[in-house]
Amino acid sequence: MTTRIALLGAGRIGQVHARAIASNPSARLVAVADAMPAAAEKLAADYGVETATIGEIAANDDVDAVAICTPTDTHADLIEQFARAGKAVFCEKPIALDIERVRQCLDVVDQSGVLFMVGFNRRFDPHFRALKAAIDEGRIGTVEQVAITSRDPGLPPREYIPSSGGLFRDMTIHDFDMARFLVGEPFIRVMATASALVDPTIRELGDYDTATIILVTASGRQVSISNSRRASYGYDQRIEVTGDLGMIAAENQRPASIELANADGFTRPPLYDFFMSRYVDAYRDEIGSFIAAATGARPVEVSGADGLAALELAQAAERSVRENRMIDL
Amino acid sequence: MTTRIALLGAGRIGQVHARAIASNPSARLVAVADAMPAAAEKLAADYGVETATIGEIAANDDVDAVAICTPTDTHADLIEQFARAGKAVFCEKPIALDIERVRQCLDVVDQSGVLFMVGFNRRFDPHFRALKAAIDEGRIGTVEQVAITSRDPGLPPREYIPSSGGLFRDMTIHDFDMARFLVGEPFIRVMATASALVDPTIRELGDYDTATIILVTASGRQVSISNSRRASYGYDQRIEVTGDLGMIAAENQRPASIELANADGFTRPPLYDFFMSRYVDAYRDEIGSFIAAATGARPVEVSGADGLAALELAQAAERSVRENRMIDL
Amino acid sequence: MTTRIALLGAGRIGQVHARAIASNPSARLVAVADAMPAAAEKLAADYGVETATIGEIAANDDVDAVAICTPTDTHADLIEQFARAGKAVFCEKPIALDIERVRQCLDVVDQSGVLFMVGFNRRFDPHFRALKAAIDEGRIGTVEQVAITSRDPGLPPREYIPSSGGLFRDMTIHDFDMARFLVGEPFIRVMATASALVDPTIRELGDYDTATIILVTASGRQVSISNSRRASYGYDQRIEVTGDLGMIAAENQRPASIELANADGFTRPPLYDFFMSRYVDAYRDEIGSFIAAATGARPVEVSGADGLAALELAQAAERSVRENRMIDL
Amino acid sequence: MTTRIALLGAGRIGQVHARAIASNPSARLVAVADAMPAAAEKLAADYGVETATIGEIAANDDVDAVAICTPTDTHADLIEQFARAGKAVFCEKPIALDIERVRQCLDVVDQSGVLFMVGFNRRFDPHFRALKAAIDEGRIGTVEQVAITSRDPGLPPREYIPSSGGLFRDMTIHDFDMARFLVGEPFIRVMATASALVDPTIRELGDYDTATIILVTASGRQVSISNSRRASYGYDQRIEVTGDLGMIAAENQRPASIELANADGFTRPPLYDFFMSRYVDAYRDEIGSFIAAATGARPVEVSGADGLAALELAQAAERSVRENRMIDL
Repeated sequence: MTTRIALLGAGRIGQVHARAIASNPSARLVAVADAMPAAAEKLAADYGVETATIGEIAANDDVDAVAICTPTDTHADLIEQFARAGKAVFCEKPIALDIERVRQCLDVVDQSGVLFMVGFNRRFDPHFRALKAAIDEGRIGTVEQVAITSRDPGLPPREYIPSSGGLFRDMTIHDFDMARFLVGEPFIRVMATASALVDPTIRELGDYDTATIILVTASGRQVSISNSRRASYGYDQRIEVTGDLGMIAAENQRPASIELANADGFTRPPLYDFFMSRYVDAYRDEIGSFIAAATGARPVEVSGADGLAALELAQAAERSVRENRMIDL
Repeated sequence: MTTRIALLGAGRIGQVHARAIASNPSARLVAVADAMPAAAEKLAADYGVETATIGEIAANDDVDAVAICTPTDTHADLIEQFARAGKAVFCEKPIALDIERVRQCLDVVDQSGVLFMVGFNRRFDPHFRALKAAIDEGRIGTVEQVAITSRDPGLPPREYIPSSGGLFRDMTIHDFDMARFLVGEPFIRVMATASALVDPTIRELGDYDTATIILVTASGRQVSISNSRRASYGYDQRIEVTGDLGMIAAENQRPASIELANADGFTRPPLYDFFMSRYVDAYRDEIGSFIAAATGARPVEVSGADGLAALELAQAAERSVRENRMIDL
Repeated sequence: MTTRIALLGAGRIGQVHARAIASNPSARLVAVADAMPAAAEKLAADYGVETATIGEIAANDDVDAVAICTPTDTHADLIEQFARAGKAVFCEKPIALDIERVRQCLDVVDQSGVLFMVGFNRRFDPHFRALKAAIDEGRIGTVEQVAITSRDPGLPPREYIPSSGGLFRDMTIHDFDMARFLVGEPFIRVMATASALVDPTIRELGDYDTATIILVTASGRQVSISNSRRASYGYDQRIEVTGDLGMIAAENQRPASIELANADGFTRPPLYDFFMSRYVDAYRDEIGSFIAAATGARPVEVSGADGLAALELAQAAERSVRENRMIDL
Repeated sequence: MTTRIALLGAGRIGQVHARAIASNPSARLVAVADAMPAAAEKLAADYGVETATIGEIAANDDVDAVAICTPTDTHADLIEQFARAGKAVFCEKPIALDIERVRQCLDVVDQSGVLFMVGFNRRFDPHFRALKAAIDEGRIGTVEQVAITSRDPGLPPREYIPSSGGLFRDMTIHDFDMARFLVGEPFIRVMATASALVDPTIRELGDYDTATIILVTASGRQVSISNSRRASYGYDQRIEVTGDLGMIAAENQRPASIELANADGFTRPPLYDFFMSRYVDAYRDEIGSFIAAATGARPVEVSGADGLAALELAQAAERSVRENRMIDL
């Protein structure tokens, strides 16, 4: 069975998903929509498909599913529209920045009964996946401590920040989801510190660029997250998990595994520059998972509830910083 | 401009090239031929193209180029046939196992004037390519010593060995080509030792499974190659080059970069299991290079003369072992 | 000038210091005291020196300095006694477990005018020292985030715990000192979580075995500390520091740098088993620093104030856990 | 029992051994001799012992053993003199540069019945020792291939070269000994190439600075050795051994295990600068092994026969280069 997918949003991440859909033998890209017609046409031409409006796609019985890659503030509306139209829906994170809006949206999804998946791409990274598999196989016993290091190579454009939802909802949300994915027990407490060290004027926008967060479960398991909007050495994405039997760690990735030795020492090249190159395989396997779910081959791997839970942790972390106190969930 | 390519041979390596051609925006897979119709049909169906006979492809004006992935003993004849038919030709290594036959074949190619490329896939591995780029940029100065480690995970099927041309022509030939690629100066002397340690009965077939080879240039640069048909830890593919200013090394690759620590120590998973998984990117970029050459975008990167030169080194190494002496080229 | 040193305490750590003193060309071990005469005699015989009582050593004009390696609850009294006797004093951490007692003791030291050094051995580890030197040279710019991982191989004897001062005063205190050493700016806030995951009955003793702590400075720099009383893979001692220009990390150490590759993967041996083997060089250089200070060759590198400050952080962390709130200093 | 040792030669390596003897609880340094009185006096003063002449030491019944650290051309005569005087003898490699001279000397040693040990320090390096132990425990099965990389940081003083015996006797001899140590089966064939790439004028002195050597055993096991008198990145000392069950490798060592990450990549410091710093532990354990043998605690670990066998391999390698042929032993 081939899943016929329409792509909403022909920007950077839309292009990534288009490629992944086109190369998947179980799916077919059938239409592209974008508010900027030129962008839609370019991408549609690359894959020999048609452009269409949102409305046309929703009304088209030959479309089984949509991949929503539009700006964040359109996500919830589009999810509801396509859920009501009976399409399977994949949506890039976040569903929305406001928790109430997310809840409403998920209610609509639930009532519609359509298949829905949120795009937390890192769960599909082969290295993190191997780490998760090792945990699930009991290789480290019961998880006790997790350390997630997640640093972007640089600040986003200044104009993006006000609509981003802030550091915790925009960036750390991936780490909150990863923490949930790995620990397998709800968090009951959040404590965090955050500052603007990369660019002090970020504070004027009410945001931060550097943060350290602790999450705690009822049984006393502990997660620490280290975030920065700056990493001169590339996109820093590491996870380390310890249990009663041992520790497992996923290392950073780089485009070329070479090492140069000279009088300055032994030097390996910088890491991948950002998520578009670092997570190529993750994006491919993420959409593969959605397609597999759409064909009934496996259950949905990242649910709307996962999207909501990560957002709740982001909100709690932000409150912890603003109110200088630990937040109990 | 789109290069229309027919695939000859629908076996394992043919499938790799089919995928690479299909995903390359500058090329189109237009036909598949195989002596086993079922194999051709399966592969053709996967990519929505037609099957055809060798003769039909040679006669088809809508085919610009062929990728030859058939058994070794058919290579030279097919190269000649398609060169005469005016098609650009990509052929998996080796052209032939006999040097005279290679020379004849290359004469036909030269007279035909078609574009011809030999498939030494490792030249296109991103890690080795980064290593070569560092050398070309002068990062280690003048190359002085090269160490190539190349170990297969296990012996090929016993019945393959008699037609393989022996260890040096079948396996080491890649290392000879890599040595030539990196050193950039002709070799004038070869000395080698070889034995059958993995399976002593390999000697009954006149072959070896374990070898160490030294190549020397006129200026005294030295290459050592270490080969084995056994590596319990995966497909061992490393290169290390020293020059007057430093050393550069390309490390082994593995599917997942994780490390497990427990009372037994710190363990990273085995390497890729063999060339089909290890060199996915290399095969993709190899056919990309052929397509780029076919469209005139860049010169051919691996010529027929490269194929011949590597074979001459293989023959010299074999003579060195059989005659217990150094061979001057 | 040779510094004549008496050793107080002939136990495990006393033996380490005896060896370091004996091998230092600027010092001479001149006497050994221990509440257990047999222990004192054994150690004295190994180095060809005399045993003596505490009182004899204090009264002996041929003793320039003492190294206090006795149980924690004797430290403060001995420091005061020997400060009043005019001897240079090196004392293993901690000075005392109670902050008021530490302050009294340091007052006595100050009034006596003797040279006084606290034994935070990790500051002298060559790897951490190289890391600190790189920071001081500006290699990573301004320090922004520090991550300290510190895991003991196992729980101390259960009977030790009540007199240990608890996890934060006994174990984390080294990490608090390291944080202070690296960040170079006072901490204004501490938040922590702790649990008993290694041995739940530790809670009955009012202690923890697993903790994660965040320290924050006025300018928003952040330190995270991860502690556990369990590490199946050896004594886990790592530091990672990021600044605006880069990151610097000190790796774990192991007795033998070998790697075994087989079908299970690539395995390096476990780490050093504990501080006595991991910090051999650190202990040697620590006592070397004390001797250099005693001879006036360099200033005291770890002061009584450093000992007090680390203890204050330990107390704050403990309060943060007990009171479920962030503690402002 | 304490072994009373006199040191012959107070130069650089003599100082290393003096320190090792002084810190060994089973030995005592009792006298120092050197052709340069000032050198002897300085070293004697450091350790509170007497200076003496060669003759006085030979005649002194309170001397149990000598450590010969004088220039190479005095080794054989001194070994014979002290063997006849009934002292246990430790001698730095080589015994002599001429094979006949070595045989004569070993005959004298044999007839005297004294304990005799040759100084191949690398056998005592903790990392190589762990590697050897892993082989002996069967961790990689039967040894099949060995790769030894051994590069000095730079050329020795030009005036040293004529008396050095040439690259193979002076430098590679350590690698020949290591090959014998690891393979445990006699070599029957040697083939080598050598050139002067570091300093072409080395050829005028009849020597080389860059070499690659293959050793082969009767059963077909293979050793490759890569040598250079230049390594901008420090003293390069690595060993890799493969067997039918796996591979084991000993990595390079550096003074500080830190890594700096910035826009240039991830950089670890250069290696130890040369053998005096790289092999501190090896020298300590080497003299410890001699002392243990002198007290009967264990057998001699490196015999005169080992010294001879390594020299024979050096001679064969040199002949292989000079005569452009493989040499059968």
